[in-house]
Amino acid sequence: MTNWKNLDTLASYKELESLARVDLPAVMAGENGAERVKKYCAPMAEGLTFNFAAKAVDDDILAALAKLAEEQDLLGKFEALYNGEVVNTGEKRLVLHQLCRGQLGNDVIADGVNKREFYVKQQTRIAEFAKKVHAGEITNADGEKFTTVVQIGIGGSDLGPRAIYIALENWAKTTGNLKMNAAFISNVDPDDAAGVLSNIDVKHSLFVLVSKSGTTLETLTNESFVKNALQEAGLDPAKHMVAVTSETSPLAKNEGYLDAFYMDDYIGGRYSSSSAVGGAVLSLAFGPEVFADFLNGAAEADKLAKEKDLRKNAAMLDALIGVYERNVLGYQNTAVLPYSQALSRFPAHLQQLDMESNGKSVNRFGEPVDYPTGPIIFGEPGTNGQHSFYQLLHQGKNIVPMQFIGFRNSQIGSDVVIQGSTSQQKLGANVAAQIVAFACGKDDENLNKKFDGGRPSSIIIGDKLTPASLGALLAHFENKVMFQGFAWNVNSFDQEGVQLGKVLAKKVLAHDTDGALAEYSALLNI
Amino acid sequence: MTNWKNLDTLASYKELESLARVDLPAVMAGENGAERVKKYCAPMAEGLTFNFAAKAVDDDILAALAKLAEEQDLLGKFEALYNGEVVNTGEKRLVLHQLCRGQLGNDVIADGVNKREFYVKQQTRIAEFAKKVHAGEITNADGEKFTTVVQIGIGGSDLGPRAIYIALENWAKTTGNLKMNAAFISNVDPDDAAGVLSNIDVKHSLFVLVSKSGTTLETLTNESFVKNALQEAGLDPAKHMVAVTSETSPLAKNEGYLDAFYMDDYIGGRYSSSSAVGGAVLSLAFGPEVFADFLNGAAEADKLAKEKDLRKNAAMLDALIGVYERNVLGYQNTAVLPYSQALSRFPAHLQQLDMESNGKSVNRFGEPVDYPTGPIIFGEPGTNGQHSFYQLLHQGKNIVPMQFIGFRNSQIGSDVVIQGSTSQQKLGANVAAQIVAFACGKDDENLNKKFDGGRPSSIIIGDKLTPASLGALLAHFENKVMFQGFAWNVNSFDQEGVQLGKVLAKKVLAHDTDGALAEYSALLNI
Repeated sequence: MTNWKNLDTLASYKELESLARVDLPAVMAGENGAERVKKYCAPMAEGLTFNFAAKAVDDDILAALAKLAEEQDLLGKFEALYNGEVVNTGEKRLVLHQLCRGQLGNDVIADGVNKREFYVKQQTRIAEFAKKVHAGEITNADGEKFTTVVQIGIGGSDLGPRAIYIALENWAKTTGNLKMNAAFISNVDPDDAAGVLSNIDVKHSLFVLVSKSGTTLETLTNESFVKNALQEAGLDPAKHMVAVTSETSPLAKNEGYLDAFYMDDYIGGRYSSSSAVGGAVLSLAFGPEVFADFLNGAAEADKLAKEKDLRKNAAMLDALIGVYERNVLGYQNTAVLPYSQALSRFPAHLQQLDMESNGKSVNRFGEPVDYPTGPIIFGEPGTNGQHSFYQLLHQGKNIVPMQFIGFRNSQIGSDVVIQGSTSQQKLGANVAAQIVAFACGKDDENLNKKFDGGRPSSIIIGDKLTPASLGALLAHFENKVMFQGFAWNVNSFDQEGVQLGKVLAKKVLAHDTDGALAEYSALLNI
Repeated sequence: MTNWKNLDTLASYKELESLARVDLPAVMAGENGAERVKKYCAPMAEGLTFNFAAKAVDDDILAALAKLAEEQDLLGKFEALYNGEVVNTGEKRLVLHQLCRGQLGNDVIADGVNKREFYVKQQTRIAEFAKKVHAGEITNADGEKFTTVVQIGIGGSDLGPRAIYIALENWAKTTGNLKMNAAFISNVDPDDAAGVLSNIDVKHSLFVLVSKSGTTLETLTNESFVKNALQEAGLDPAKHMVAVTSETSPLAKNEGYLDAFYMDDYIGGRYSSSSAVGGAVLSLAFGPEVFADFLNGAAEADKLAKEKDLRKNAAMLDALIGVYERNVLGYQNTAVLPYSQALSRFPAHLQQLDMESNGKSVNRFGEPVDYPTGPIIFGEPGTNGQHSFYQLLHQGKNIVPMQFIGFRNSQIGSDVVIQGSTSQQKLGANVAAQIVAFACGKDDENLNKKFDGGRPSSIIIGDKLTPASLGALLAHFENKVMFQGFAWNVNSFDQEGVQLGKVLAKKVLAHDTDGALAEYSALLNI
């Protein structure tokens, strides 16, 4: 049986608190620093590596983190999760997003079906549908091919699939894998749908409506918006729409859609990129083989997350260093900084993944916890961020731990040599320089030009951003967040904090308000 | 003479620390809450209003903040700035971005010219150039009209103009003001330029190269990338490029450009949207009249920032409430949450504006300060964020002050009625609901469903997002950041924290490295 315990009850946590802090500028200097870069490196899937040399840890702290992993039984909890235990206790649900990518343990039977078979069946159905669309066997009413796929969804039905699409769009163009352009409608702001519709050719567009319950208000509103536009263009909406929903939702087996692909309650929105939620739009945009490569990369990362040796388990290591930074060093934020323009929206996805999972104040039994939990996540791609908010990261009053991501090669391969180096080399040189600048700092008599250093960062380095390495990257972060949730003893799979706003918004729309809410509603002319 | 003092030396600051904290859930409840919403409201330019009812302030705290404004002479410092004093002491420069929008005080003479006249002259030159492009008097070599304008710049030459373009693109389409599509190349990642170039028709594209010094490595690299692409397409780069640069840069009066528009050292990158940096690309995209409307909105906001009565000076009020939250309440972050999809990149711009300006640890005399300075800024549009990171904002262990922005009307005006309300009404209902949910919370026996409340927010409400109201919004935040810098006694106009990384990156590219830097470079194959 898994034994769920609060972080601050663990002997290893108390040991961690008592250990001497690492003087990062000192240990990262000279040959010792070089040794750290060689030594503090963990393998990841798809040729990625996790280098944590510039984190404020040493062998003693890492040994204490390994004890913490054992005492908190992180692997046992992961095993319980992938074997189908009800780990999402708040909502009394299994947690099965990894099962979309592979079988990590026992067969998981729920709702009378083998869930791995269920997920694979949806992938197969999507693949067949996508191939027919690409082959011109499923077309618009005039028999013309669909050229654009538009995802209508919000939160996890938007951020993950959108970030992945943006990450692979140029790769797909270069490699001949771009089958359809994709667009995304998410915000209930009517300008979002209107803006997207003004940029696409609706007659040749296929819309993927994503709502697990079939009742998400933003999504249904945007669906109506789109259906109006289709009708105004003299088109039959039922010929332009597919649904991604649960089998019991009103959208399933509904004549208003060309087809429906199914998800279930065991995959939360922010973990759903590997399910039909990501599968439909990404298989249509890039072809099902590309989506399969993405899932395979994620499956490799999932397998590595089962590794017992902490030093070889990058997701657990990343998680525990984050716990150390949050709970022992007291840092509130983590910046995600990909040196890859293709990953421009990846930080926004991780922001949801992490903050919605672990931004909690009660443990999994609903008892208040007395220690910090999930950090605030933000980030933008480098080198752009260097010319923006890095000033505060280098010289501000609060230390922000950082998570860099970099690749040895560009996606497109088109480059120029200026001042003796390619753009890709400049990109890599900048991320290397930033890590060292943040860690080591630089003295200066003019304190305005002095850098204290001691600002910890890790970097994930890959050869190239491809569907498989992107899958590995995504799964790494999903597993990191999962391990952190286990360490903090929170339920990373519910999101009760989003409910109150929904309830009050309904009251406003029903004009059932008083006090401040009535006044705000009046100011906004509702 | 202005008297520059550290925040913690002020009697009013000590008074502020001693005042009782506001119990936000209590004061925002019932009729008292309704009264606060009516009372705690300051006018802004262009019909915007700043409502701070849900901030943790009361009349006593506001009175102490007014004393602080006086004791720290915030208006005197603003006056010194707009009258041309060398307020950017680190770089020994004047700070003149407001002068692009209007004359707030005395004539400012620098480098032997009247700077207002200089900025207006550049606006006029840009307007004439843009009109000729739109009229087909300036064309490509085949005499065909340019249809796309591409900004090549990074940091302030990218984030502000890009955020503004995105904010007005759909408005411009709807109102017939979209003269040219705009695109942006910024990152040194070669995939950025390659990706943009694959999406545009280079033969009909005009590129705006923005670099004050004419030596920004990312920008020159991307320029070469673009010039290669033009040459490969058989086009003469000199017929497709204009420069925005300083009069003394190598790009000025250079035959490689159709024309050059000038900026100077008195406007920092992050404040440069009102200068030729924003002016060229935005006048080309929307027409010079639209850019003039934007500047007029900003000028109105600047005038209001001179207001002596704190309760009528929204920028100063916003600034001082932020100082109270940062220094007295101890919050590290501020989330910017526009309920407007058009403002999707506005938070990224404010992130630079704020964090690069006030993310400092020394005062303007280069002495360390012992109190927190600029906060960490992040944000995404609502309602999307509600389905993402709001979980942590509602129930996480750290309180994050929030800055909402909302409008009564959509930009495009196309809408649908679902379940009795329009999308725009749903959008407004959601932001009203969130403010109250964050402030008041909700009790529940199940602590997982309990909301503590006490999470402070303000909202800027406008009628509609237009060029003028966007200008007012931007200037509000610029002036807020300026007042906060004055309050903290930091120099908000330099950015020494970005230098070390540049120096080290050059070393990497010259293979002049050892220790950790050499190892990271090897890992990245440089």
